[in-house]
Amino acid sequence: MARSVVQISGHIIDSLILPKILDLIIALGAEFEILEVQIGHRRADRSYARIQVEASTPALLEQVLGKIKEHGALPVEIEEEAAELQPAPADGIFPDHFYATTNLTTWVRVKEQWIEVELPEMDCGIRVDLIAMRAACVPMHRVKKDDLIVVGHRGVKILPLERRVPREAFEFMSSAVSTEQPKGLLIREIAEAMKKTRSENGRILVVAGPGLVHTGAARHLVQLIEQGYVQVLFAGNGLAVHDIETALYGTSLGVYLDKNIRASEGHEHHLWAINTIRKAGGIRQAVEQGVLQKGIFYTCVNKGVDFVLAGSIRDDGPLPDVITDTLKAQDVMRERARSVKFALMMATTLHAIATGNLLPATVKTVCVDINPAVVTKLTDRGTFQAIGLVTDVEPFLRELCEYLNPPANKQAGSSASLTN
Amino acid sequence: MARSVVQISGHIIDSLILPKILDLIIALGAEFEILEVQIGHRRADRSYARIQVEASTPALLEQVLGKIKEHGALPVEIEEEAAELQPAPADGIFPDHFYATTNLTTWVRVKEQWIEVELPEMDCGIRVDLIAMRAACVPMHRVKKDDLIVVGHRGVKILPLERRVPREAFEFMSSAVSTEQPKGLLIREIAEAMKKTRSENGRILVVAGPGLVHTGAARHLVQLIEQGYVQVLFAGNGLAVHDIETALYGTSLGVYLDKNIRASEGHEHHLWAINTIRKAGGIRQAVEQGVLQKGIFYTCVNKGVDFVLAGSIRDDGPLPDVITDTLKAQDVMRERARSVKFALMMATTLHAIATGNLLPATVKTVCVDINPAVVTKLTDRGTFQAIGLVTDVEPFLRELCEYLNPPANKQAGSSASLTN
Amino acid sequence: MARSVVQISGHIIDSLILPKILDLIIALGAEFEILEVQIGHRRADRSYARIQVEASTPALLEQVLGKIKEHGALPVEIEEEAAELQPAPADGIFPDHFYATTNLTTWVRVKEQWIEVELPEMDCGIRVDLIAMRAACVPMHRVKKDDLIVVGHRGVKILPLERRVPREAFEFMSSAVSTEQPKGLLIREIAEAMKKTRSENGRILVVAGPGLVHTGAARHLVQLIEQGYVQVLFAGNGLAVHDIETALYGTSLGVYLDKNIRASEGHEHHLWAINTIRKAGGIRQAVEQGVLQKGIFYTCVNKGVDFVLAGSIRDDGPLPDVITDTLKAQDVMRERARSVKFALMMATTLHAIATGNLLPATVKTVCVDINPAVVTKLTDRGTFQAIGLVTDVEPFLRELCEYLNPPANKQAGSSASLTN
Amino acid sequence: MARSVVQISGHIIDSLILPKILDLIIALGAEFEILEVQIGHRRADRSYARIQVEASTPALLEQVLGKIKEHGALPVEIEEEAAELQPAPADGIFPDHFYATTNLTTWVRVKEQWIEVELPEMDCGIRVDLIAMRAACVPMHRVKKDDLIVVGHRGVKILPLERRVPREAFEFMSSAVSTEQPKGLLIREIAEAMKKTRSENGRILVVAGPGLVHTGAARHLVQLIEQGYVQVLFAGNGLAVHDIETALYGTSLGVYLDKNIRASEGHEHHLWAINTIRKAGGIRQAVEQGVLQKGIFYTCVNKGVDFVLAGSIRDDGPLPDVITDTLKAQDVMRERARSVKFALMMATTLHAIATGNLLPATVKTVCVDINPAVVTKLTDRGTFQAIGLVTDVEPFLRELCEYLNPPANKQAGSSASLTN
Repeated sequence: MARSVVQISGHIIDSLILPKILDLIIALGAEFEILEVQIGHRRADRSYARIQVEASTPALLEQVLGKIKEHGALPVEIEEEAAELQPAPADGIFPDHFYATTNLTTWVRVKEQWIEVELPEMDCGIRVDLIAMRAACVPMHRVKKDDLIVVGHRGVKILPLERRVPREAFEFMSSAVSTEQPKGLLIREIAEAMKKTRSENGRILVVAGPGLVHTGAARHLVQLIEQGYVQVLFAGNGLAVHDIETALYGTSLGVYLDKNIRASEGHEHHLWAINTIRKAGGIRQAVEQGVLQKGIFYTCVNKGVDFVLAGSIRDDGPLPDVITDTLKAQDVMRERARSVKFALMMATTLHAIATGNLLPATVKTVCVDINPAVVTKLTDRGTFQAIGLVTDVEPFLRELCEYLNPPANKQAGSSASLTN
Repeated sequence: MARSVVQISGHIIDSLILPKILDLIIALGAEFEILEVQIGHRRADRSYARIQVEASTPALLEQVLGKIKEHGALPVEIEEEAAELQPAPADGIFPDHFYATTNLTTWVRVKEQWIEVELPEMDCGIRVDLIAMRAACVPMHRVKKDDLIVVGHRGVKILPLERRVPREAFEFMSSAVSTEQPKGLLIREIAEAMKKTRSENGRILVVAGPGLVHTGAARHLVQLIEQGYVQVLFAGNGLAVHDIETALYGTSLGVYLDKNIRASEGHEHHLWAINTIRKAGGIRQAVEQGVLQKGIFYTCVNKGVDFVLAGSIRDDGPLPDVITDTLKAQDVMRERARSVKFALMMATTLHAIATGNLLPATVKTVCVDINPAVVTKLTDRGTFQAIGLVTDVEPFLRELCEYLNPPANKQAGSSASLTN
Repeated sequence: MARSVVQISGHIIDSLILPKILDLIIALGAEFEILEVQIGHRRADRSYARIQVEASTPALLEQVLGKIKEHGALPVEIEEEAAELQPAPADGIFPDHFYATTNLTTWVRVKEQWIEVELPEMDCGIRVDLIAMRAACVPMHRVKKDDLIVVGHRGVKILPLERRVPREAFEFMSSAVSTEQPKGLLIREIAEAMKKTRSENGRILVVAGPGLVHTGAARHLVQLIEQGYVQVLFAGNGLAVHDIETALYGTSLGVYLDKNIRASEGHEHHLWAINTIRKAGGIRQAVEQGVLQKGIFYTCVNKGVDFVLAGSIRDDGPLPDVITDTLKAQDVMRERARSVKFALMMATTLHAIATGNLLPATVKTVCVDINPAVVTKLTDRGTFQAIGLVTDVEPFLRELCEYLNPPANKQAGSSASLTN
Repeated sequence: MARSVVQISGHIIDSLILPKILDLIIALGAEFEILEVQIGHRRADRSYARIQVEASTPALLEQVLGKIKEHGALPVEIEEEAAELQPAPADGIFPDHFYATTNLTTWVRVKEQWIEVELPEMDCGIRVDLIAMRAACVPMHRVKKDDLIVVGHRGVKILPLERRVPREAFEFMSSAVSTEQPKGLLIREIAEAMKKTRSENGRILVVAGPGLVHTGAARHLVQLIEQGYVQVLFAGNGLAVHDIETALYGTSLGVYLDKNIRASEGHEHHLWAINTIRKAGGIRQAVEQGVLQKGIFYTCVNKGVDFVLAGSIRDDGPLPDVITDTLKAQDVMRERARSVKFALMMATTLHAIATGNLLPATVKTVCVDINPAVVTKLTDRGTFQAIGLVTDVEPFLRELCEYLNPPANKQAGSSASLTN
């Protein structure tokens, strides 16, 4: 029998962390004995526990310790042990058994000091700079030969996401996904969280798919941008093409948005829109040349909103602004996502999951889609902080705009806001 | 080779009826030869075709003739042939090979006369009264011993649903079901169709599931009822229970609608609501006794709206108003559905399909659900006239109410309608 | 401040019960203080905790106590307090504030004795017989005037469903619902659980929808019945009608199952099937008369399997065997469900939820559907013990049959087909 | 009023082409008059029609003519008119109003000759080489300055996809998508079509998503490859990573496929798998070095199956074999797709749609997914020839393999299990 004693502290009981750790130990085939537990008597108090883990083999023990460390349980005897560092054998290649990061706040122990890992991001390695005494997440393709990389689980600790005490308003629905619940209150809370983010000068990221344009919701996003509620926009070729198609021809995928009939040249409109922008040299240039005069991307250019268009193999064209190399696109998104405090993802699977992979778990994330599978997929892939809302994106955005911008002068007659 | 010549007339080409008939002939394994075709030169003109059907056996020929007759193709030689009538062998039992009805307008030939079949409804038999020279659809359980019932397909003709020329506004989306289209226009059209129906004193039927209450949409339905846009309401125990639970306790399925938190006694509220109404003797009595003072069913009682609550095996209680015998419930629904001109079905599968089975194809039917499968199921089951709208029912009803009741007097302060 | 001290014991930490209780206290707006906690040091040990609950009002305190009692937390000072009993004011009506049951094992304290509540079922009242010193769940419509019914939460305790230690094989997937996981292992476990149930003479209940016939899976269910793996079958008119339609005409909903083409008389077949059985007097009679010679219900009759057909408002006909009164159908299902040890629900929403409502939480329940929403709905409605499997029912049943009945001569070579 | 006369011939009635054209004319707001119609009297005969189109403006007329041309209706007076050619203004930019291609067989009229457009593909331009008298589809990013490109709709004609007479077996389900139908027959037909394709030395393309590995279906795909039923494989980083993760560690996304429990190092396995292949230099190199010894991609390398891994922004790593530039990936896929006769797409949305965009309409295409939305999306995007099958991919592939490779010794008895 291999044995090790771990300890854990914090709101480990009411945040479900202790039970989860016990559960993992058993699920992995090991046993536990609780040696000591001090439970906070009130919600604001922290609890503490020492647990002995027993496994049939040292390999299994190592596995268990690695896994429960993700939840903050650190071996007592090795808490002060240093992380093992190995040089990367070549550019773009980590040493074997490199430590793969979560998106949680992480510390690594180097030279008898705990240093916080910068740029937290899921599924990266940790690169340590022994001179500057700094550590940072580095994606696999960015590692350079001889970079020092953390290997194994020793000397790494994680701050699990605890449910805050007292609860924040924003957390009331946790990650619940349901089509059978009143949504108005949640939308109001999202509006409040966005207002708060902006009042603290936090940046808001919107990630959106082309369904936004097809369903006629683009005008609401334009309103959000105009009112300063969007600092960064991530999307693909599709959103931009259909937004520009609407600006130029009044159609989206060949359907006239204000008539709901198929345009005769339907499938040509979006290709002509692409060609037009290619001729202009890009979206910004098209705006400057007066070719593009309205819509989401026109407003982004006008309001100085940063947008990143990432390429995919189903793109037509694409627009000159699209970053066709997916690694480069990821890197640009990674960089732009850094200072974001709030992320609103709507009507997109690919871009939502890609962005979710890049965001630290501390970024408040809301994912809106009419298809429950999208939200499930997002949280399954590790973005567990995401709040899902299964609803139609057009009425969602309309209602969100109403909460963000209550018509002060509605008495004066501006009730038209719903019908313009 | 068995052969028969059929003829068909009407807008048989642009309404896709002729191609569908040719398609059926081949699909069933027979052959056709078009003997003559006169095509209307303009949209308003009618076309005419004579088609010879050839099948390898008389049985197959009979099958083919039976099937294409549903689309209006009648054998030339037997067009004037009388329907075969046989007496029902016992109460609740049709003669063998009875003619099973569609929900289309149907005539039956009796005593050298074509008489229109009354009470058109899917999956019934046709009972003929030779004295009164009347025919009517009769559901299986309502047939009486010795009623004369049509057997086989001879002497029966059907008026297929043609797409009108010129198209009505209402038809623009046919039965398309999509989550990726602008819905505002369709909702506006639904509002227009409801207004038109009411201006002609047509009755509007609403069929609704409990999701309407859970999502906070009940207040919109109350508004529809108050404004006279609902004459009949079909629902189950669930809608009524949760509506009354909300009126009595402010919760729906134990969730406080205005706080979105679970009530402590959550699952007791709906049972206590049922018990309360049972004690009062029924919904109307509860309103009269002042026990029930708001909500959908309170408003129905107050406004004299006819409601039918049909039982299901998953009901708790149920409320005294629920008709627990499903055959009796069907009969009451059948009777109430008769004069309806417009049907709006929301957030319900069972009641939508059950009602769809009872409605003639001439009733304009709209089915709204966030789950595309519900709408597909409805049209698969024969209610092909139904227009599906895949969206969230709460914002749908909110927007519908706005179109039906544009806030002329919003200045006066009623803008709160979105936030109360 | 209103205060009360509760205590709880069992595997309250690793079964997540303690955290859930603390969570509920906060969610309902109250506070807690953990006075004492003794945590079992090893998995097999039980833990114990005493918690003081504080609420701003006595009403809130009462609410909180009521809710956490569902998880086994009993007020210390009143643990030995008697349940309050009140007479039912009339037939079919409970006293106000009656205690609404869960589907968990429950005791009620009467005359200083804890007696176990018989016939555990969700959403009922508890009727106490003071002479016989027995208590039982009673559905609302079955209560008689002056029956003694438990009111409020005092004197009632519940045994929460703990995850067993050590885990049973059957529990490995808890209630996870996923389309992206290997299913073979779970199907094998289901087969093992069914074999074990039968080897202990436990009764197996199958609940099935008509999709089973449409997808060609009926032959697998026939095989299950023949091999003695089905003791009770719950279904609606639809399953029986389409099974009989297939037996008589080879079609299901008018589609030839072995050719996948629409039958010409498609929609007539199922009506003729109904009429034929009505003429025979019922399913059993049709089998005895030689009219019905194969299929699910033929096999049920032959093998003496109990079947219950419950009516719904969308039924055609219905068959004479259908219990059209939903209350009566519930009562028959309730009675038949009593001795069931294992329930397998396939391709049905209405009957799965209705049955789920009647089953005690101790019945192992598996729900199979290609639509994830069905399983979610079932567990949302309180049948939290159900294991969901999102897959196609035909291959599921085929594979289940293969595990239950490995072909004797597969040893000869072809057995590799499942495992290579 | 602007007027034009168009003519159309072929199986225009029973293939629904004529009605669709009449429908389009009206839907676009124009009128028609049928001047002449000669309808083929038997299925094998072709029909012919001349139709006068009237529109309120020349612009509308032009629109209508452009649209109905996609269905084969060519203006009589201009049938012999030459296509208008304009030089591309710059690399990657088409002339304004360039003709956007469908995926149907297309001819263009140049120098009084109709020449067939090579490399048919959706949403491209047509480049004409006047010297060689050849024309070909060219994607936007591949056009070079001064290439001659077709502009407008004149001088272009299309061969609409007619339903063949007599129907091919493969067509029996058209594009129907249903969860409630027997699938065995369709799977058998797919097997037959694959056998036929191979017997004629046609190439089969498989497009697959990572769900194939998660659900344990990879072994069936390995079998297909081994038996020569796959010539080309399109996928993303995900399929390869999880296939290799399974080969190296026995897990997929950290779940042990043969135990269905989460591996302790779950999320590290797939990253380590990527790192291992990066170190080896690529998949082929890993096979050669003995690092990769089983699985889908091992078998591809061994059997010489061409695989294309296209990048996406959600990729981890990625593997060295992934083409991260989406335009380059498209070009490689385009080239590899050229000679394909049959395409089988499973458990992928992005790659299925991207591939669908590149395939001519003449390639038989089957799309299998448990989510009906994927298939709907594919056909909505223009790949209307795709047959959808809504089912679980693991049992689908298992059954397909059984049809393709009936166990030789099944004659000995157990073969009945699939066919009785």
